[in-house]
Amino acid sequence: MNRQQLRALLDEVRAGVVSPESAQERLFQVLSQKPYEDLGFARVDHQRNARQGFPEVVFGQGKTPGQIAAIGERIVSAGHTLLVTRTTVEAYQAVVDKLPEAVYHELARCITLDLQKTSQTPRGRGTILVAAAGTADLPVAEEAAITADVMGNTVDRLYDVGVAGLHRLLKEHDRLTSARVIVVVAGMEGALPSVVGGLVDVPVIAVPTSVGYGASFGGLTALLAMLNSCATGISVVNIDNGFGAAAIASSINHLD
Amino acid sequence: MNRQQLRALLDEVRAGVVSPESAQERLFQVLSQKPYEDLGFARVDHQRNARQGFPEVVFGQGKTPGQIAAIGERIVSAGHTLLVTRTTVEAYQAVVDKLPEAVYHELARCITLDLQKTSQTPRGRGTILVAAAGTADLPVAEEAAITADVMGNTVDRLYDVGVAGLHRLLKEHDRLTSARVIVVVAGMEGALPSVVGGLVDVPVIAVPTSVGYGASFGGLTALLAMLNSCATGISVVNIDNGFGAAAIASSINHLD
Amino acid sequence: MNRQQLRALLDEVRAGVVSPESAQERLFQVLSQKPYEDLGFARVDHQRNARQGFPEVVFGQGKTPGQIAAIGERIVSAGHTLLVTRTTVEAYQAVVDKLPEAVYHELARCITLDLQKTSQTPRGRGTILVAAAGTADLPVAEEAAITADVMGNTVDRLYDVGVAGLHRLLKEHDRLTSARVIVVVAGMEGALPSVVGGLVDVPVIAVPTSVGYGASFGGLTALLAMLNSCATGISVVNIDNGFGAAAIASSINHLD
Amino acid sequence: MNRQQLRALLDEVRAGVVSPESAQERLFQVLSQKPYEDLGFARVDHQRNARQGFPEVVFGQGKTPGQIAAIGERIVSAGHTLLVTRTTVEAYQAVVDKLPEAVYHELARCITLDLQKTSQTPRGRGTILVAAAGTADLPVAEEAAITADVMGNTVDRLYDVGVAGLHRLLKEHDRLTSARVIVVVAGMEGALPSVVGGLVDVPVIAVPTSVGYGASFGGLTALLAMLNSCATGISVVNIDNGFGAAAIASSINHLD
Amino acid sequence: MNRQQLRALLDEVRAGVVSPESAQERLFQVLSQKPYEDLGFARVDHQRNARQGFPEVVFGQGKTPGQIAAIGERIVSAGHTLLVTRTTVEAYQAVVDKLPEAVYHELARCITLDLQKTSQTPRGRGTILVAAAGTADLPVAEEAAITADVMGNTVDRLYDVGVAGLHRLLKEHDRLTSARVIVVVAGMEGALPSVVGGLVDVPVIAVPTSVGYGASFGGLTALLAMLNSCATGISVVNIDNGFGAAAIASSINHLD
Amino acid sequence: MNRQQLRALLDEVRAGVVSPESAQERLFQVLSQKPYEDLGFARVDHQRNARQGFPEVVFGQGKTPGQIAAIGERIVSAGHTLLVTRTTVEAYQAVVDKLPEAVYHELARCITLDLQKTSQTPRGRGTILVAAAGTADLPVAEEAAITADVMGNTVDRLYDVGVAGLHRLLKEHDRLTSARVIVVVAGMEGALPSVVGGLVDVPVIAVPTSVGYGASFGGLTALLAMLNSCATGISVVNIDNGFGAAAIASSINHLD
Amino acid sequence: MNRQQLRALLDEVRAGVVSPESAQERLFQVLSQKPYEDLGFARVDHQRNARQGFPEVVFGQGKTPGQIAAIGERIVSAGHTLLVTRTTVEAYQAVVDKLPEAVYHELARCITLDLQKTSQTPRGRGTILVAAAGTADLPVAEEAAITADVMGNTVDRLYDVGVAGLHRLLKEHDRLTSARVIVVVAGMEGALPSVVGGLVDVPVIAVPTSVGYGASFGGLTALLAMLNSCATGISVVNIDNGFGAAAIASSINHLD
Amino acid sequence: MNRQQLRALLDEVRAGVVSPESAQERLFQVLSQKPYEDLGFARVDHQRNARQGFPEVVFGQGKTPGQIAAIGERIVSAGHTLLVTRTTVEAYQAVVDKLPEAVYHELARCITLDLQKTSQTPRGRGTILVAAAGTADLPVAEEAAITADVMGNTVDRLYDVGVAGLHRLLKEHDRLTSARVIVVVAGMEGALPSVVGGLVDVPVIAVPTSVGYGASFGGLTALLAMLNSCATGISVVNIDNGFGAAAIASSINHLD
Repeated sequence: MNRQQLRALLDEVRAGVVSPESAQERLFQVLSQKPYEDLGFARVDHQRNARQGFPEVVFGQGKTPGQIAAIGERIVSAGHTLLVTRTTVEAYQAVVDKLPEAVYHELARCITLDLQKTSQTPRGRGTILVAAAGTADLPVAEEAAITADVMGNTVDRLYDVGVAGLHRLLKEHDRLTSARVIVVVAGMEGALPSVVGGLVDVPVIAVPTSVGYGASFGGLTALLAMLNSCATGISVVNIDNGFGAAAIASSINHLD
Repeated sequence: MNRQQLRALLDEVRAGVVSPESAQERLFQVLSQKPYEDLGFARVDHQRNARQGFPEVVFGQGKTPGQIAAIGERIVSAGHTLLVTRTTVEAYQAVVDKLPEAVYHELARCITLDLQKTSQTPRGRGTILVAAAGTADLPVAEEAAITADVMGNTVDRLYDVGVAGLHRLLKEHDRLTSARVIVVVAGMEGALPSVVGGLVDVPVIAVPTSVGYGASFGGLTALLAMLNSCATGISVVNIDNGFGAAAIASSINHLD
Repeated sequence: MNRQQLRALLDEVRAGVVSPESAQERLFQVLSQKPYEDLGFARVDHQRNARQGFPEVVFGQGKTPGQIAAIGERIVSAGHTLLVTRTTVEAYQAVVDKLPEAVYHELARCITLDLQKTSQTPRGRGTILVAAAGTADLPVAEEAAITADVMGNTVDRLYDVGVAGLHRLLKEHDRLTSARVIVVVAGMEGALPSVVGGLVDVPVIAVPTSVGYGASFGGLTALLAMLNSCATGISVVNIDNGFGAAAIASSINHLD
Repeated sequence: MNRQQLRALLDEVRAGVVSPESAQERLFQVLSQKPYEDLGFARVDHQRNARQGFPEVVFGQGKTPGQIAAIGERIVSAGHTLLVTRTTVEAYQAVVDKLPEAVYHELARCITLDLQKTSQTPRGRGTILVAAAGTADLPVAEEAAITADVMGNTVDRLYDVGVAGLHRLLKEHDRLTSARVIVVVAGMEGALPSVVGGLVDVPVIAVPTSVGYGASFGGLTALLAMLNSCATGISVVNIDNGFGAAAIASSINHLD
Repeated sequence: MNRQQLRALLDEVRAGVVSPESAQERLFQVLSQKPYEDLGFARVDHQRNARQGFPEVVFGQGKTPGQIAAIGERIVSAGHTLLVTRTTVEAYQAVVDKLPEAVYHELARCITLDLQKTSQTPRGRGTILVAAAGTADLPVAEEAAITADVMGNTVDRLYDVGVAGLHRLLKEHDRLTSARVIVVVAGMEGALPSVVGGLVDVPVIAVPTSVGYGASFGGLTALLAMLNSCATGISVVNIDNGFGAAAIASSINHLD
Repeated sequence: MNRQQLRALLDEVRAGVVSPESAQERLFQVLSQKPYEDLGFARVDHQRNARQGFPEVVFGQGKTPGQIAAIGERIVSAGHTLLVTRTTVEAYQAVVDKLPEAVYHELARCITLDLQKTSQTPRGRGTILVAAAGTADLPVAEEAAITADVMGNTVDRLYDVGVAGLHRLLKEHDRLTSARVIVVVAGMEGALPSVVGGLVDVPVIAVPTSVGYGASFGGLTALLAMLNSCATGISVVNIDNGFGAAAIASSINHLD
Repeated sequence: MNRQQLRALLDEVRAGVVSPESAQERLFQVLSQKPYEDLGFARVDHQRNARQGFPEVVFGQGKTPGQIAAIGERIVSAGHTLLVTRTTVEAYQAVVDKLPEAVYHELARCITLDLQKTSQTPRGRGTILVAAAGTADLPVAEEAAITADVMGNTVDRLYDVGVAGLHRLLKEHDRLTSARVIVVVAGMEGALPSVVGGLVDVPVIAVPTSVGYGASFGGLTALLAMLNSCATGISVVNIDNGFGAAAIASSINHLD
Repeated sequence: MNRQQLRALLDEVRAGVVSPESAQERLFQVLSQKPYEDLGFARVDHQRNARQGFPEVVFGQGKTPGQIAAIGERIVSAGHTLLVTRTTVEAYQAVVDKLPEAVYHELARCITLDLQKTSQTPRGRGTILVAAAGTADLPVAEEAAITADVMGNTVDRLYDVGVAGLHRLLKEHDRLTSARVIVVVAGMEGALPSVVGGLVDVPVIAVPTSVGYGASFGGLTALLAMLNSCATGISVVNIDNGFGAAAIASSINHLD
């Protein structure tokens, strides 16, 4: 139960929509929850939703399918939304055995199970625009889009608008200016965030990708370029970190 | 005149506080302003306030005192707030000859002239907390704090709270959770943003500094550490870029 | 026969537990041992136990299964404990053919054969705590734990206590302070040693891991962060070098 | 006497403008010239004009004023145009003592003495446009502009058109498309060549500059970005190498 | 329809070869073409031929065979020449299903379909010489040669002329001096462009390759060496970027 | 009051050397001490002695003389030993004005004021040997030696024993084997720790120095070499970090 | 026919062992040989034996088996010794089809065919000692040993003498001092050349290997360490370049 | 007394030139010499001449003038030749006060005092050619030339023969082929050793220099290029290490 969810519950109590008894029960359940659960190889952090506004996300890389399934099962048991990133179809098989409603997003290499979709999940106030420079950047852009979606945001996708054909971007000026936060995904020389950043007054989160070869050094070039952007209002996350960009974009979009 | 300023003016017209004639005059003046002014060595971008929410900021490094003074004079003439970063006391002498109200911030190496302080500058909705790991990080932290202040934000300074003495940070938990955006400034191993990021649900902008020696490689270590933070809700700006961190923090803090 | 083993033998002679004849025989055998044995492709260093307190350890990477089995057989023949690191199940097959009691540790990628377990192997004085930041760091943490165990130390494992959920670490404060040496294993931004180092007064050996992606550069980021730690009492070993960390931790733990 | 100069002379012979005797004399003088002159510390390459279309250029850095003056004197004696790059006012003092007509370009840190200006120096066919992203890039841009000028090209300067204020560049679209070659000078994230490259069909020579700080790493970031440009028709020279960019631009502009 | 094609058409109108009606029809078709086509995962840039002199080239790496075939089909439908670089035989299978005339160049890893070969494609004025230092550099050299060919240039291939046997290069001096532009491809220490650059007065485009091992660092050494060439008239493209070198060489060769 | 000091006091109470009243007074004073003191620009951590066994050490670099003097004065006022590292003679002037007993160590660039020297400061159990490869490494070696001394250790200095003249080291074999911990300081190729590490069975702390030029890259080469040592029982601190090496050596030497 | 071979022939003529006619025939054959042979994808350099003392060596990496076999066949046809390095068993199959006497060296990944072994190949004057630090370095050491052997040198192999067990090296002091040139092969921290270099007065060629992990960075650490050796008389070749070390060692050993 | 000097003495005894008594006296003096002398801050290695063929050379960088003078005085007292490298005129003042015959070489930044010049210092058998690419490389080339000279070699200097004007080098082919060892000094792209190495059959020692700017990275580019040379018979020393190149060249030149 994060800050927004707590406020929503108390509003409902005052409005008489929820009875004090029912609210008491629900809050007690949360309060009596263990702060974390020790599985030996992992300590599942059940307080993270309360502390950070979203439950613990499972970083799939370097974990076995069995470990991922076990952690995922504990997160869902605790009533939380599940998001596994940087994972594989093998891990998904292990997860779906325990959690049949889990969904696999192939391009984005993510597993999701969003129990709260039907409930009153707190929604971000505006739209998060995810812009990508080229087709090869789509796996990272999709990781960002799915993360933003599962975290309760309206997402707008604007793909293949790299700077070599500037008119493709300028034609979409309206979508740029109507977003509340913009995530810009680009590899190679990573110039797109600078151009977008010069056109808008909302925060821009830049995601370098490992798309390129030779002196792109696995995305290092795009990363360095974005860090040195001459436009203001830009900050940067790790190479290929679509998840991280969406997470901060969502935290911005959920500010009152 | 940025988006917020335009809205404020129109609200005042409807409220009868400002007459249509007076508003017409003021808007016409803005509309008839040249988009940029060519000084030969520089094109002063007068549309930046409208486009990005804050006038062009002068990057002082690599410009002569005379160039800085000339550009500064044009910005102030156009009715904009002046901010010069990464500058020197020599440049300040040149500026103050033309603009006697300009102020020099020695620790932050900034020049400011905030004409709009007394007027209805749009204020950010919450507080920007600037946290710094150590005393040697103060020049960068102050650059951030002064930038945030001049951009219309309430600033809270929390200095020398590095992770080697964690109780100093944990004692200030309230100040962390009551901010709307947090700027975290740290050199050496750059661990502070990860710890702060794990404690709050608001966006954290991490600023690596060049404080350190040997394998800190001029701040590269802190930069890389912040980009690889295991905490969510963190994004990063260039080494020693206090200005850039404050600019995106301000753009977040000015979201409705 | 290392320094501690020699002292133990002489103590037993004085105590009458071992007869001078028997001690003479055992010492003569050691003294008449060749300092090293030349297998053509390798010179097995039989003096290493005497000189460094533990027999030669076989670095498995880059050696063929046959070479590993041959070297292992010579070490065990000389009455020494066998430890093979960074090895494979194929190498284990070759070893177990010659040495049926050899054990394979899959997660840690180690082979051990500890003949001296039942005898009076000198034990370290206290406990070596092996702390790991995340589940993906476990292979390295286990390499450290198994090495420390085979070198005669009591090992305490504390896993998945990364800084993004600080309460998981702070809850285990007692285990931190009751260790004699702490090995801290972490990838990504490598911040855990700094936090642990700020909480204890015993030596901390930091092990960066290659866990991460993008700008983690195969563990370089964690390595650099640990080298720049603002906490005192920390030193660092190579990326993924669980063995090396345990070796120095064991040498510390065996100091009188 | 380079390829173009030779052709011009022969054309004049055929046209009767120059007598065969006079042409014979001039050609004999060239043919009897030593291929290089050995000053002990330097071998002045007198064939370079014939071989490469422009006389040897003096790289000033790491040479003493005396060495520069001595080499410069030999070049001018041989009837060649003098260009000294990356030099100082001290070196200029030494040069001007021997060559009173030499000119010092302070911003560009160059010395020139263009004996052939008044003669029939072969001119490039079109215009070389030198575009610079920011005011701090001017020293490099001016090195390029002066080099191009002294090599016989018409130069158009377009300064402070960085991508953070794209309208400043787009307004000058005509100047971009009317150039025969474009030299684009930019520091920080080095995005300008990608944007320019996407707008024109003529060759673009990109020059990264060391303007920036922190993760600009002395121009490395701009260099890498330019090498990874997603636009076509771009090639790159060394950081701050305005001279080199102008040299290849001139060789392109002198193609028939 | 690029600048040269437009001019050719208008020349034919004046010469009476093409009727005004026919020219009107053809120009109207071009003018009514959409500037780009949105396939969801890609925006095919149909204006690129007009803007840059050659249609959009498909960067194959990171795209699925299906995506490549779909984009390729749209480019050919619009009447443009198809070039796919850094691609695979799998992608070619998908392309050839839709475009039976497409050709696969195995060594160069390219797909081409040059509809305009038989028509009046504007030809470059001179020859582009592609020189390669060693046999292992051929894949990159061939990517350059095929790109140059498909862009309408006469190509001369000069392979295995590395500096360790200088006489192999010097013997071909005539071919060097008769080219209008030279593309020099070399790995390892990347010295060939410096030697070639010192012998000619035409522009040299240097392409570092990833040929080498150890401290060649995937072509970084050759790249750095070429950027630091002491010869003039050289500029550089990304490691293994045969395409990029040919693209700028072609744009130079098409200058009037 | 650290762990050892607390135990010493309680032992004296039981032995009747200190009266319960006096001990109560002294402990109450410690308990009532503020955990840290906020000077605005710094939070002096008064708990560090209790938590880590030694008071807060002032990292002098990046602090003004006035800041250093103010922090130093607060540390001494709290009854703690003062150590300032990486400082200057200017800072010493400011410190000595407030603390006349402070001492400046020129070679080591340290300020010390050891109030507890005469009292029962807990002493380490054995000797810390500080070995240095060359004369140019002495500033770092001395920083280590002085730090170890002020932290209550017996220090043995063994200087100029680099591997190019191995007999100089082998002659001192006895001093190597009689130490309880060894700090090895070396620049250039950093080979000394590997050789020392192969000769002893006690922990070795390796300190790379920035001594060297060219491809020593400011000590990076020595750092990397030490991290890759083939000898066991070695761990590494930051380049030039004599202080850090002594701190962990002291924490090892103070283990019971 | 290289310098030594030419001299040997002329000596035999004077001694009457070879008739002038026979010598004339043999020399004419050499003189009428083409300086190189153009295979399209390769120019086989037949002058290299004369110019450099050994025929062209085939760098196998990046060449197809067919290319290697074709080049190899031309070299042998010209009467030269064949050496192919960095090759595979597949390439060997192609070679042996054409050249049945060719030999494959698996560990060293080399193919050789030494036609001249039985003839009067000029021999080096002394012994080349190839020393290797560890068993995993053997592939590189063997490449050096086989190259040296095929180039006409007596080779002494001294393997597994790394610095962690210094007595293994010191025991072989005689072999070190009786060599005329020493090739030292080492990975990890690359300290062995420094130690060897400090013990002998003959030239030492150091070969870093890619043996190691983590911060060994594929041999970069060993390379840097060797370049910074504090011992004199050492020079360095590329990582894993056993061939190159043997080639210069052989050229030294063949000096009169 | 090194190997050659010892042999010379014994030859003279046999020849009756030196009496057994006199030889006994001289040998006894050597034998009774301390292996090293401990000055506290330095251990002067008096055995180095015997062990390595030349006395200890003083690396001046990082040593105070007083330290250099004291060490120099001890070396000369022991009857050895003095060479101080990377030193300053200040250090020379201190040395010349104690050793009036010492000479300062300004360009090379060396101090020498060659007592043995007049005696029978063993001479190298052939000539060491020192070739330098450009005028700015002269300080390093001179360090090599002076070192080679003081070590008893005939030196030939060939300066400013960089590859941009290849004819300057090819004209000196005779000097290249008549040397016994060649030291090649070059900065920027470091191509000269590859070209020289392809022309000769004697060993080439390549010295990269820090001459250059931008992407030369202080000589790193030249270093990497030389390590990746496609020519054989080349090995490399540290950036700017003229001394080291001359030392190995001298050891080669002194081989019988």
